[in-house]
Amino acid sequence: MHDAIRQRRSIRRFTREPVSDDLVEEILDAARWAPSGLNNQPWRFAVIRDARVKERLASLTRYGAIIRSADVIIAVFFDTASGYDWTKDLQSIGACIQNMLLAIHESGLGGVWLGEILKSGSEVKSLLQAPDAYEFMAAVAVGHPDGKPPRAPARRPVSELVFYRK
Amino acid sequence: MHDAIRQRRSIRRFTREPVSDDLVEEILDAARWAPSGLNNQPWRFAVIRDARVKERLASLTRYGAIIRSADVIIAVFFDTASGYDWTKDLQSIGACIQNMLLAIHESGLGGVWLGEILKSGSEVKSLLQAPDAYEFMAAVAVGHPDGKPPRAPARRPVSELVFYRK
Repeated sequence: MHDAIRQRRSIRRFTREPVSDDLVEEILDAARWAPSGLNNQPWRFAVIRDARVKERLASLTRYGAIIRSADVIIAVFFDTASGYDWTKDLQSIGACIQNMLLAIHESGLGGVWLGEILKSGSEVKSLLQAPDAYEFMAAVAVGHPDGKPPRAPARRPVSELVFYRK
Repeated sequence: MHDAIRQRRSIRRFTREPVSDDLVEEILDAARWAPSGLNNQPWRFAVIRDARVKERLASLTRYGAIIRSADVIIAVFFDTASGYDWTKDLQSIGACIQNMLLAIHESGLGGVWLGEILKSGSEVKSLLQAPDAYEFMAAVAVGHPDGKPPRAPARRPVSELVFYRK
């Protein structure tokens, strides 16, 4: 587990090998086990494999090449009708996405958390026919990794992150 | 990994056995490996073992008994000076907290994510002498579990969470 947390990388290039439906279900199963305040489970998902839909998504971000290359895109939404506290709800959405990324890594797949596409949130919502109450939170690109995993971006040491100990 | 994600529970009762410094460092190490937008790593931590500081924290939430029972409290802050996008920064803080909870579970410890105490954010900041730019995000209580883990709060099935497939 600890190794998975440290060894997970953002994977941005994928082979053409399809991701099985079973693996997609496993990623979504990991997602739903995230903790949430009052157990409100505010996460909702759109699963996109269709090349035309992916192409339209790709056109909404500077990172379209990643979306075109990935076999599956999982778009993550926050159902504001299930929300109770903006800060805590966004945090639990983040916990949910981290579960997805860890499950992707553990399955031998590669994935990356795409955030820049949030600038096109309303276009993504209308493309995916999301209900009004859903806010677009992230896209996770999933596929079989092509090539070696990249080096991890450096992390600050714990000593720089802890400001108080008593 | 997938089992850890599913089997992790919120643990709210702890024995008096201390949590070693090494395990605390491991939890913080897992925390810092979370992903963040632009790799901005906006998380900061306060580590509290002192009974008097814990007592003051405990007085700031309805869940004070959990704080008194836990050997260690890790308070998580968002350094807004490192932030770049409120939504994405809060999500990455959530990913960081989830890494901590998974590392706690994997180490045989128990932990729980406390959010209700956010209502006392300014008091927590001043108690822990946090810089102005730091926003209080969560407290994670850590200890050796006392008794059997509770049953998991039910989760919605994946079929209820996926609103679009194509």
